[in-house]
Order: sequence, then C-alpha cells, then structure tokens
Amino acid sequence: MCQLLGLNANVPTDIVFSFTGFACRAEEHKDGFGIAFFEQRGVRLFVDPASAVGSPVADMIRRYPIRSSHILAHIRKATQGRVALENTHPFVRELWGRYWVFAHNGNLVGHAPRLHASFQPVGQTDSERAFCWLMQELAKAHAALPSVPELTATLRELVPGVAAHGTFNFMLSNGEALWAHASTRLAWIVRQQPFGRAQLQDRDLSIDFAEHTTPQDRVAVIATEPLTTNEAWTAFAPGELIAFVDGAPLAAAGAAA
Amino acid sequence: MCQLLGLNANVPTDIVFSFTGFACRAEEHKDGFGIAFFEQRGVRLFVDPASAVGSPVADMIRRYPIRSSHILAHIRKATQGRVALENTHPFVRELWGRYWVFAHNGNLVGHAPRLHASFQPVGQTDSERAFCWLMQELAKAHAALPSVPELTATLRELVPGVAAHGTFNFMLSNGEALWAHASTRLAWIVRQQPFGRAQLQDRDLSIDFAEHTTPQDRVAVIATEPLTTNEAWTAFAPGELIAFVDGAPLAAAGAAA
Repeated sequence: MCQLLGLNANVPTDIVFSFTGFACRAEEHKDGFGIAFFEQRGVRLFVDPASAVGSPVADMIRRYPIRSSHILAHIRKATQGRVALENTHPFVRELWGRYWVFAHNGNLVGHAPRLHASFQPVGQTDSERAFCWLMQELAKAHAALPSVPELTATLRELVPGVAAHGTFNFMLSNGEALWAHASTRLAWIVRQQPFGRAQLQDRDLSIDFAEHTTPQDRVAVIATEPLTTNEAWTAFAPGELIAFVDGAPLAAAGAAA
Repeated sequence: MCQLLGLNANVPTDIVFSFTGFACRAEEHKDGFGIAFFEQRGVRLFVDPASAVGSPVADMIRRYPIRSSHILAHIRKATQGRVALENTHPFVRELWGRYWVFAHNGNLVGHAPRLHASFQPVGQTDSERAFCWLMQELAKAHAALPSVPELTATLRELVPGVAAHGTFNFMLSNGEALWAHASTRLAWIVRQQPFGRAQLQDRDLSIDFAEHTTPQDRVAVIATEPLTTNEAWTAFAPGELIAFVDGAPLAAAGAAA
C-alpha cells in the first residue's frame, strides 16, 4: 500500500516539515515517490521511480522550501503496474484550461471502465485508469469549470462507482480545492491560530509553527496516517469525501456543499 | 527571445554537459526555465519561473545525471504572458495514451485559432495556445497513435499555418521521436563514432565523449545556437521540420518521411 500526503492552505505554505516525516516512510514504500505543487494555475511535478530515501529529487525538496497552497505527495509500493516513471503518482491532466493532479492509495480490482474520450492512461496502473475515468466523467458532467461545491457534488456521485472495486483512498486538486476521499485510511488536521509545537511521528524533529506563521494562516494537512504525535488528527469515515478550500473543509468554511 | 535545447539519442544519455553551457545563457533569459526528460513513456518535467542561474532546481539538474533518450529544455525571456509557472515551457499534454512535450522560441502575433476540443491553454502564452492547436489537429487527423513518418507528414501540413503568424522555432516530442522546426534560428549536430572532444561556447569546459560512450551510441543535439565551438553544427533552413529518431534525422536514418 502506498501513502498519501496533501496540503491545502489559505496562504502559500512550505511542506518541508511534513514531507520530512512523510519521506521517512519510504523505507517501506520504495517503488517511487512524487509531489506536485500548484502555484496559481501552474504545477510543479516532481516524480522519481526511485525511493524518496536517497533520491536527489527528494533531497532537493527537503531543502528547497517551495511555497504552495495546494500540494499532493505520494510514496509508492507497487501493486499494479511495474516500477516505472509512467506509473509514479501523482498524475496530471488538463481539463477546462486547468491542471488536475491525482494520487491514489489502494488497489482496484476489475475496474475496467470504457475510456472513450480524451483521457487515456499512459502507464499501467489501476490508479491512472480511475483518474482518467473521473476526468472523462467530469468533462461530460460540466461544459466548463464549475464551482467547487458543484464539482464536489459530481465527485460524490462518481466516486462510489470506483470505490466499489476496492480501496480508493485518493487526493485530487485543480489548484482551487483539494478533494480527499477515504475508503479505509486517511486523516486530516487544520492548523490555525493559536499555533503550537508539533512533533513528527517518524523522526525526532519538532517545529513551533507560531514562529513560522501569521495569525491569519490556516493550513489543512491530510495524510494516510497522522504525521505528528501531539496533535488531534481526525480520521475520515469510510466513503467520506471532503473538499478542502483555504485550509479548511468546505462545509466548515461556511460554503454550501 | 527564448532559447531551446533538445536531445534525441539511441541510448539513454545524460545532458549535463550541454545543459551546463545552455544554462549560462539564462543570464539574459531570466524569466524561467524548464526541462523535460522522457523515460520510456513517462516524463519528468522540471519547471521554474526563476532564472536557471541560481535556481536550486537547475543546480540539481547540473549535478544529477538523468539519462534519457528524449530531452527538451527551454530558457525563457517573456514576450507574451507574465512570468509565472503556468507560462513556463515546456508544456505537457496527453494524447493517445502518450505524453507530448512542447517548447517554443519566438513570437506569434494574431494567432487565435478556435480551440473547440480537449486541449485548452492553462497560461497566457502564444506558445501554449499554438501547442494546444497542434494537439487538437493531430487528434483530428489520426484516430490512434500513427507512425513517426505519418506524424511528420501531418505536422508538415499543420505547422506553416502557425508559422505564418510570426517566429515559430519549436521542439515537440512524444518519447518516440523529437520534432524540431525552425522559422529563424535552430542548429543540430549528430555525435557518433568516432567520438571526440567538445568545447563549450558559453563556458570554459570541455568533454571527451570517447570516454563516456560506446561505439554504438548516437546522439542528436538541437539548439537555438551551437553550444560548442569545435564541432560542425548544421543550421536549419527557414521552414524546415526535422524528425529525429534514434539520434539522427529521420530521412538520414533510412526511414521514409
């Protein structure tokens, strides 16, 4: 099984602290890693079919604080599809003049949807196939980019059809929102004022967020398993899909969903 | 005006030597840089809206020899579209289950094609718009991935319509071939046995390729301006489109074009 890490914030935020803990888990998940950062409409995507432990790319990410309001990361333990760059998450496609980034943890069995439109997998994973199908169906459901609540409603219709085929923990972002869905394992936390000290679970490292933030900052972090030991993470319910906008779950942010 | 660098080889080859010289030109072309590496069907894309001089990403590329048979690089001096990640070349799209990578040097004026299909620009450049139009028209011309000679023939029909709007020096690759087209400035060289020593034009650095190659290796390098001082580069004729496969121009490789 792979591991997922996502960040959604109301200000561009660096993920060096969380990624440092997350990348430690690559000891067991050594079949590649990837991380995508939105900067407004643009995306930086770093993918490496090597383990995040020892990868020069992962090393650069740990040392170069790229600030972004939407970040998705994935470390891979191959289930379907050989260890290769084209099978390394996250995957990116363009729809309605926006980039869409997707990463998946889990295993889908017998999910062979008809891909008759403009989204075809490049690699061999169940994950990229499911992503292409979601993109195809979103494109059919809306003529142009809809609002985040509308997209959330459409995803809530589409996702159960895929999730019926196995474990479908995933994250999806277009740079406006980050959607996270759990079949089995996913947890989230919102960091906001008053900021405190956080202690990584996977490494002897802590940070005092009060020294690195302003009172207006709000940051949601979503991960397969909680990354810190002294904060209150909320587990997703099975089948739950949450849209994160401006560092908080959409409903909690006051918008309609 | 921007600068382009491309590599097509019959074996995965690292571009550290050529990129080192090329990146020196970023002193004048400071509005971003990008480089894409195919590994079979997968692509690594590194883009940075900062200058390649001083960028931690460019620094990693100079030190980490990523081997690839298809590489495209671009350093940007903005003409159309603000300095932003979404306007940084190369651009990537998926068609027929393959990634397509595109980078452009030049300026197109009044090129406003109708983009009615599945390829929409994310940023504001003339370059990405032209790329989306080429992808749209390729998708219309062929039902599935055609052969390289067929794709070359289709591109020879499509490209003059864009080039009529200005300067359209570009490189395009799907990991099977690298197409390069010149309106004004582009030069290429094939390195093969017997390999010799090459001296960079932009920096006091030379390399003896004989020490880094086997007799079977063949590598085509394409650049806006020759990168070395002691090798015989061939200038593109205005309007010339060349498909490079396995380190040589397609016709010279014996295939039909």
